[in-house]
Amino acid sequence: MSTLTVAATQMACSWDADANIAKGERLVRQAAQQGARLILLQELFETPYFCKDVDYKFMELAGPISENKAVRHFRTIARELEVVLPISVYERDNNALYNSLAMIDTDGEVLGVYRKSHIPDGPGYHEKFYFNPGDTGFPVWETQVGRVGAAVCWDQWFPEVARILALKGAEVICYPTAIGSEPQDPTLQSKNHWQRTMQGHAAANLTPVVASNRIGFEKGDKADITFYGSSFITDVSGAKVVEANETDEAVLVTTLDREANARTRLNWGVFRDRRPDLYRELLTLDGKHTHASRT
Amino acid sequence: MSTLTVAATQMACSWDADANIAKGERLVRQAAQQGARLILLQELFETPYFCKDVDYKFMELAGPISENKAVRHFRTIARELEVVLPISVYERDNNALYNSLAMIDTDGEVLGVYRKSHIPDGPGYHEKFYFNPGDTGFPVWETQVGRVGAAVCWDQWFPEVARILALKGAEVICYPTAIGSEPQDPTLQSKNHWQRTMQGHAAANLTPVVASNRIGFEKGDKADITFYGSSFITDVSGAKVVEANETDEAVLVTTLDREANARTRLNWGVFRDRRPDLYRELLTLDGKHTHASRT
Repeated sequence: MSTLTVAATQMACSWDADANIAKGERLVRQAAQQGARLILLQELFETPYFCKDVDYKFMELAGPISENKAVRHFRTIARELEVVLPISVYERDNNALYNSLAMIDTDGEVLGVYRKSHIPDGPGYHEKFYFNPGDTGFPVWETQVGRVGAAVCWDQWFPEVARILALKGAEVICYPTAIGSEPQDPTLQSKNHWQRTMQGHAAANLTPVVASNRIGFEKGDKADITFYGSSFITDVSGAKVVEANETDEAVLVTTLDREANARTRLNWGVFRDRRPDLYRELLTLDGKHTHASRT
Repeated sequence: MSTLTVAATQMACSWDADANIAKGERLVRQAAQQGARLILLQELFETPYFCKDVDYKFMELAGPISENKAVRHFRTIARELEVVLPISVYERDNNALYNSLAMIDTDGEVLGVYRKSHIPDGPGYHEKFYFNPGDTGFPVWETQVGRVGAAVCWDQWFPEVARILALKGAEVICYPTAIGSEPQDPTLQSKNHWQRTMQGHAAANLTPVVASNRIGFEKGDKADITFYGSSFITDVSGAKVVEANETDEAVLVTTLDREANARTRLNWGVFRDRRPDLYRELLTLDGKHTHASRT
């Protein structure tokens, strides 16, 4: 197939996991009916975004990928609808906890797991309490509908992630997300900043981005968040092709021309003209020292 | 000073170098009168953009930085107006040729030279014929008005460059540019793509970008180009604060709050949460092998 129809979705989540999964299934079915073969649900949709608070009890939500209710459910749906579903879950592996993503192919098999690499921390977003920084690197999966890259939420702020996925041949980059208001500063509206950052990744890598974000007001013990939706899909120039609003459930569908996009990536020349010999400072935190020079 | 007023400019260039330098000086003086302390002129403004054609005679335009007419002239202007001027020139060093930038501080001294690292090549933009890929890496200069990063034109498409400059403490990133129509395809309009890519760098690095682009129609032997101006300056979220149109000479001025911007970079958390241990693939061309693994 020289085209790939992709979908972004957004929805509100409650403490009823079965209801959240059923709602996600409804959105997936709507997208599939519109021809989508790669359908993105948002980050950690089985529950409210528990990282608003710091509470050990929420660690109990984590479990092995193979036993995760959403993964098991959507493996069946993927096989039935013959669609690719990246599913975001809270993973536990022995004593380590991860914000993970299972990439389910059209036959219902889990192609592999990505573990969120960049973990935020701040008022309302206490993720360093709940998640180990991921150890998987940034895989690109050869699915039945094309080469798909995916990273999770905060990863979307890092140009390194999108670049590595593009270098590894991703034809599209998926970002399941949960972002909204900032409890410590009601005047801080990150929506446009958030979109522009990902639009920039698409533009610099000539690779479409699909972002699915949560909606709804969620009350925590210490902090409340209103998630701002605004899920979107870009073209290879980073322009938004479809976009949801900040408040309503949505299914966004668009068709990518895989051959035209691949030709643009080839012809625009940036992947020919890179200078990895000059990029060693990217492997540092301070732009000064390399790991090698510290030893 | 906790603020820094910066300026972008744009102008058309002829084969009269003295006239181009005089025009540039006029724009610099206008910007300085409006309070700008860092004023960006566009790429290679001493001449038309000769890379439209492939002709050995244009290599004769290159010379040592210390003898370059524009550098000598603007060192005097910088000292007189007490402004920082990044000046783009065609540099020759023995038998090597570079698309270089001399960073002139407020005392008229050349703080250092950056040599364009990413060299494009294509119809109308035959830069690989004229320029060695630069060997300087990506310096950030401690000028009298703040820490300034600069890269040249095609460099602006590469997230690696902006990231390294930000890691090294750049408070603002300057991109002198010459980009316009694509001779091989009149329907290809890269302006929005070009802007979005740099807006993305600003957004991801929380570092304002200043871009100065050429305007005017230039006729070559084989290819003509209409340069599309659209110079702009962003804030730390990548939003355009000021922007010129595609056709008119312009001086754009805006004031950056250095302290507020630094606080935003600190608080937003992306520089705390980077994972250099996972970025080795950025040092490859194909995302698969590292230099180490090839030996």
